[in-house]
Amino acid sequence: MPKLSDRSQTMPASPIRKLAPYATAAKQKGIKVYHLNIGQPDLPTPQEGLDALKHITRQVLEYSPSQGYQSYREKLVGYYAKYNINLTPDQIFVTTGGSEAVQFAFMACLNPGDEVIIPEPAYANYMGFACETGAVVRTITTHIEDGFALPAVEQFEKLINERTRAILICNPNNPTGTLYTREELLQLRDLVKRYDLFLFADEVYREYAYADTPYMSAMQLEGIEQNVVMIDSVSKRYSECGIRVGALITRNQDILDAVMKFGQARLSPPLIGQVVAEASIDAPQAYHKAVYDEYIARRNCLVEGLNKIPGVFSPMPMGAFYTVVRLPVKDSDDFCRWCLEEFNYEGETVMMAPATGFYATPGAGKDQVRMAYVLKIEDLKRALIVLEKALEAYNAR
Amino acid sequence: MPKLSDRSQTMPASPIRKLAPYATAAKQKGIKVYHLNIGQPDLPTPQEGLDALKHITRQVLEYSPSQGYQSYREKLVGYYAKYNINLTPDQIFVTTGGSEAVQFAFMACLNPGDEVIIPEPAYANYMGFACETGAVVRTITTHIEDGFALPAVEQFEKLINERTRAILICNPNNPTGTLYTREELLQLRDLVKRYDLFLFADEVYREYAYADTPYMSAMQLEGIEQNVVMIDSVSKRYSECGIRVGALITRNQDILDAVMKFGQARLSPPLIGQVVAEASIDAPQAYHKAVYDEYIARRNCLVEGLNKIPGVFSPMPMGAFYTVVRLPVKDSDDFCRWCLEEFNYEGETVMMAPATGFYATPGAGKDQVRMAYVLKIEDLKRALIVLEKALEAYNAR
Repeated sequence: MPKLSDRSQTMPASPIRKLAPYATAAKQKGIKVYHLNIGQPDLPTPQEGLDALKHITRQVLEYSPSQGYQSYREKLVGYYAKYNINLTPDQIFVTTGGSEAVQFAFMACLNPGDEVIIPEPAYANYMGFACETGAVVRTITTHIEDGFALPAVEQFEKLINERTRAILICNPNNPTGTLYTREELLQLRDLVKRYDLFLFADEVYREYAYADTPYMSAMQLEGIEQNVVMIDSVSKRYSECGIRVGALITRNQDILDAVMKFGQARLSPPLIGQVVAEASIDAPQAYHKAVYDEYIARRNCLVEGLNKIPGVFSPMPMGAFYTVVRLPVKDSDDFCRWCLEEFNYEGETVMMAPATGFYATPGAGKDQVRMAYVLKIEDLKRALIVLEKALEAYNAR
Repeated sequence: MPKLSDRSQTMPASPIRKLAPYATAAKQKGIKVYHLNIGQPDLPTPQEGLDALKHITRQVLEYSPSQGYQSYREKLVGYYAKYNINLTPDQIFVTTGGSEAVQFAFMACLNPGDEVIIPEPAYANYMGFACETGAVVRTITTHIEDGFALPAVEQFEKLINERTRAILICNPNNPTGTLYTREELLQLRDLVKRYDLFLFADEVYREYAYADTPYMSAMQLEGIEQNVVMIDSVSKRYSECGIRVGALITRNQDILDAVMKFGQARLSPPLIGQVVAEASIDAPQAYHKAVYDEYIARRNCLVEGLNKIPGVFSPMPMGAFYTVVRLPVKDSDDFCRWCLEEFNYEGETVMMAPATGFYATPGAGKDQVRMAYVLKIEDLKRALIVLEKALEAYNAR
């Protein structure tokens, strides 16, 4: 049998999925599992998007343009304008989810061996996409004590060398829920400009920014217009993870030209997903307000509840719907597995994502987990009780 | 401005798209363009698939499993069994179109610098996916005179060296319409076995095999079960190019394990597309017969018509819905552009894909074009008249 590629070995397994077999086994034993582990929103897709499915009258489900439908991209221009991100339709390249936008950005900007600096803990699949494309991820560690704030410029500079080509930020952040401040972003801008780097800005959680100040996008940073590539997706903002519609957005025409070639090779992004996404832009303000208010309430419920459990600490996340939590355990990988495999409280248990999967630094995050607050408040409350009991039982073994 | 990656430069532009601006300009001048250039079937999607869209009742368009829905994969097992391809659901990994299946196969099996042998003319995007993943394509030229038959084993062996890891075939073939014989496939099997290579078999046109003998899949080749990776897609068989649903299929568990990691990184294939594809498997035999008969009639109309035009030669393709045609011109790139930019006959012209884009060998295919018979017979007849007039006018300049 011929040997597989090296990247088949080095490609990291998804940290949020590796516990899946234990969860399946728990459910087969009749145990109810509270899924705090994955960012699959439970809130409904906008009715406008669902209705669009019913109204598709075309008789041939044909290819859409490689860059996405013109009508959709024009409508997106209006959507972004509400966030003071001013674009033309040609600066928007529709992708198959935000995932493909990251892949395209890496392929367009990074040679194998080129380095991209990413604050950790980080969305784990960035490491996977780097592995696929040959890029090398250098992580800069952020810390739970200061709410995973962006490190000082000097910390970044320590990592910069002749192979450094880009910085990637996720803002609001998955997995930490951190929302970077205007000051942090301006510092980053100066750094990007000084070293002439690309700035990849994954902003798929833009709707979920809980600070009083207006949300600031990397696309608003002046003086680095040619350096910024924004990654976007409708998955989280419309609860439409399954339709696989995202976008790569940049004002850099050379990048757009390269991305067109990658995009043409894979022919087109999903047609029906674009129809749904385009219709979803018409979701009323009431939809967004209801979703926003619900996440705020859940966040408060979860974080306040967590901080009442002895030995547990969560910062108050200001964005997205995640938080990274410190637990009174030495090995959260073992604890999370144990919760599924060996524990239940009144027939229930919790599934969390061990934070080690979000760090590249060996040993980092071993006492942390990521939780997503994509459950109803009553379920969150119950999950908190189960978690407290689990920690007691685990540490009393 | 930071410099882009090398692959942004080396990535080939799509040969079937590069004439698009000329086609747009022609249409803006009011000229009717017969699109013989692209493999977008005009035949309807099965009603079963279209109806499925109307019956989606879920309120959250959530992620589907990374490997695709279990119910869909189970139903695919039954579909493949009809072609004497015996599989389990776990040997089927649902992808975002056949494109992603090729990418996954290359990533799982080939290191950067590893070589894959592909008969040319070849589907152009293989070159693009090789560029993306660092694989090196070595082409083995097939010839219009013998209907683009698979070259003798000795020709393959001339290309095999220590970096050779795989052979890729597309059967039935895009762009040539060639259907490989049982004998050709058995020779290929022996070769694959002798040198312990991977065999990537793109079989997305399986429905359109026009020989009297049963269609033979690479999955049926005995003794190389661990070497074969089949690429599949519903795009062509159900006229559903836009839903982006394909599959990577193999009996090699190591490849499946690697592909799971690539698949988890991009989260999931399109949910709605899978719903449509699953329902489309229920399309009645009458649907397939009508489509099949229509393609046969079109093929006969096109190929017979082409061979009546002075200086034009097309083999009789035995599969898919393409043919590569020799024209009495020196530079088909120039001729195809000229048809769009400078010519019309009674307000009409033809768009074809210059064959040079399907060859890696410099200079090969300069007097050839690819045509797809995805137009109604009356349009094909008219396109043939327009083509004949175009050739006369072009060569009389």
